[in-house]
Amino acid sequence: MGPWLSPEDLDLVRRKVPMLYIDALPARIGERGEVEAVGLLLRATAEGRISRAMVSGRVLYHETIREALERHLEKDLGPMALPQLPSSLVPYSVGEYFPTPGSPFHDPRQHAVSLAYVVPVAGDCQPSNDTLELTWLTPAEAVTPEILGDLGDGHAILLKQALAHLGKVF
Amino acid sequence: MGPWLSPEDLDLVRRKVPMLYIDALPARIGERGEVEAVGLLLRATAEGRISRAMVSGRVLYHETIREALERHLEKDLGPMALPQLPSSLVPYSVGEYFPTPGSPFHDPRQHAVSLAYVVPVAGDCQPSNDTLELTWLTPAEAVTPEILGDLGDGHAILLKQALAHLGKVF
Amino acid sequence: MGPWLSPEDLDLVRRKVPMLYIDALPARIGERGEVEAVGLLLRATAEGRISRAMVSGRVLYHETIREALERHLEKDLGPMALPQLPSSLVPYSVGEYFPTPGSPFHDPRQHAVSLAYVVPVAGDCQPSNDTLELTWLTPAEAVTPEILGDLGDGHAILLKQALAHLGKVF
Amino acid sequence: MGPWLSPEDLDLVRRKVPMLYIDALPARIGERGEVEAVGLLLRATAEGRISRAMVSGRVLYHETIREALERHLEKDLGPMALPQLPSSLVPYSVGEYFPTPGSPFHDPRQHAVSLAYVVPVAGDCQPSNDTLELTWLTPAEAVTPEILGDLGDGHAILLKQALAHLGKVF
Repeated sequence: MGPWLSPEDLDLVRRKVPMLYIDALPARIGERGEVEAVGLLLRATAEGRISRAMVSGRVLYHETIREALERHLEKDLGPMALPQLPSSLVPYSVGEYFPTPGSPFHDPRQHAVSLAYVVPVAGDCQPSNDTLELTWLTPAEAVTPEILGDLGDGHAILLKQALAHLGKVF
Repeated sequence: MGPWLSPEDLDLVRRKVPMLYIDALPARIGERGEVEAVGLLLRATAEGRISRAMVSGRVLYHETIREALERHLEKDLGPMALPQLPSSLVPYSVGEYFPTPGSPFHDPRQHAVSLAYVVPVAGDCQPSNDTLELTWLTPAEAVTPEILGDLGDGHAILLKQALAHLGKVF
Repeated sequence: MGPWLSPEDLDLVRRKVPMLYIDALPARIGERGEVEAVGLLLRATAEGRISRAMVSGRVLYHETIREALERHLEKDLGPMALPQLPSSLVPYSVGEYFPTPGSPFHDPRQHAVSLAYVVPVAGDCQPSNDTLELTWLTPAEAVTPEILGDLGDGHAILLKQALAHLGKVF
Repeated sequence: MGPWLSPEDLDLVRRKVPMLYIDALPARIGERGEVEAVGLLLRATAEGRISRAMVSGRVLYHETIREALERHLEKDLGPMALPQLPSSLVPYSVGEYFPTPGSPFHDPRQHAVSLAYVVPVAGDCQPSNDTLELTWLTPAEAVTPEILGDLGDGHAILLKQALAHLGKVF
C-alpha cells in the first residue's frame, strides 16, 4: 500500500486515531532577521465568504515532516517560492484539534495534532488554482480584527503565537 | 466508537497513516532547577536480554497530549509519581520513526512521530508489572556506553537531546 | 571586590555595557500542566499611580542566572513561595531595553538585555515591603487592557509572549 | 560616550558586572532544512598550538543582539558570507562563563553570559587576518575527539548542544 489513502479509508482512519498535520506560516525575513511580512492564503468559500489560512496539511504515511512541509508549501505557494525548511524540527507551537465542538481548535472531521513552523520564503509565490491569492501582511496588519476574523480560530491562535515567538506583539 | 482500537483495526491503521506518540523522560530536579537524575525503565526482553526505555506510548483518539503523557506516566511509574506535566506543549525534540530499516529511528511496526518532553517527577515511583525496574541515573551515568547500549537507538538519541537541552553535555 | 557595586560604580557601568537582567512570570500550574493563573506585582508609584510588573532584576557579578532568579523571586514573593526554577536555561523570550526613547522596550537608565522565564510557584507568596500586593490573575484577566495598561510596555509584551508560549492566546 | 570602551574601562567593567556575549555556529543548511556542515574557526595560538572556536564576541553598549551577531559574523567570515540572522531571539542555549576555575564554562577574564545561535550561511566565507581558516565539517566530523579537543570546553558543549538541537546526535 502506498502513502495515499482512498477517501473511504481516510474517513475510517480519521475516526480511530489522531491525524498528524503541519501548519506553516510563510514569512519574509529582512536582512537583519526581523520578520517583515507574513503570508496568508485567501480563499473564497463555497458560500462566497472570504476565508484566510496558513499553509496546512496532513503528513502522509512514510513522509517526513520536512517532506510534508515542502509538499504543502509547493502546493500552496507554487514551485518558485524557495521556502527555507526548518533546521530544527522543534515547532514553535503544537495545535490540538478535536471533533467535539467548544474548543478554539475545533475540526469537525477529525482529531488532529499539528506541528507549527515559521518558514522563511525568499522566492516568488504563485498560488495554484483553488487558492485565490497569497496576501503578504506586516505583523501589525496581520493581527487586525478583520484579518483574524477571516482565519479559523485555530489559525488565528497559531498566527499570534508565531508573531509572539518572533518578537512581534501588539 | 471509543478511543480504543481492536488489535486488527490498529494493525490496519498503522499501515495507512503516521501514528502520534509521546516520549517522556522522568527527571529529578533539584531546588535550583538543575537536573539531578533521570529515570529509565528497565525491562527484560522475551530473550532474556536487558532493555531500557523512556516512558513512551501512543496518543489515543480524543486524547490530549497532556492526557496521553499522564496516562503513560501513571502506567509506567505508578499512581504516586506526581509527575509535573509540561506547561508548554512545545517538545524539546520531535522523533520520526519509519518502518523502513536504516534510520536510527526505526520502528518495524509503523511510521510514528513522537513529541518528547522532560517531565519532573517529585513522588514515589512504583513501576507496574511488566516493567522490572525504574532506574535513576545521574546525567553522567545515563550517557555511559553501557546504558546507551541498552536503549533503542531512537531513545538513546532522545536522551542525549534531553540532556543537551538541560545543559548536561559530556 | 564583591558582587555588590556602589551606586556610583553602577551608574558608571550602566553607561558602558549592556546590563544583564532576568524577568520571571510566577505561575500557578494545574495538575495537568495548564497554567491557571499568573502573578503580577502591584506597586504604588511615587505619584500615587498603580503600577504592575513581573519579577525582574539584575544578574550580579559571579551570580548564576538561576541564583539571580532565586534571589529576585525571594525578594518579591517571600521565602515560602517555593518557586520551581527552570530546568533549562533557554528563556521563552529575550527582551532588549535601550536608553533611547521610541522602542517599547525603553529603559531610561541603561541598555539592558533580559532573559525571561515562566516560573511555577507552589507555595505561599508574601511580598515584602515596597510591594503592595501580588495579584493572581487568570490568563484571560491578565490580558485585559486595564491590566496591560498598568504594566510597562516591555512587561506587557513579555507577559503576552509568556501566555502565547503556554498556549493561552486571546 | 560611544559604544567602544577603552581597554582600561573594559578591564574595570569586567570585574563588576556580567558581560553579555553572543556565540554563533555558522551552518550550511540543505534544501530540505537539514544541516550539512558547520563552520569552525581555526586559529594558531601564540604558543603555536591549533585552536578552534565558534564565532563569538561581546554585545556592545547600544547594540542589538542581531547587530552584534552581524558584526562578529562579518569580522570572522568576511563581508560575503550572507548570514541569515535568527528570526527569533530565543537562543538554542545560554552559556555562563565564570572567572573561577572548575566549570567547563571558565573564562579567566570575566563573568560572561552568552546567547548561542545557529546561523545559516549561504555565501562565501573569507576569514579576516587573525583567523587562519574557516573549516566546514559535517556534523559527524565536528564531534570527533580531535575536533572537540581543539575547542575550548565551553564551545565544545555549545557545539554539541547545537547539533542536538538540529537533530544530529552521535
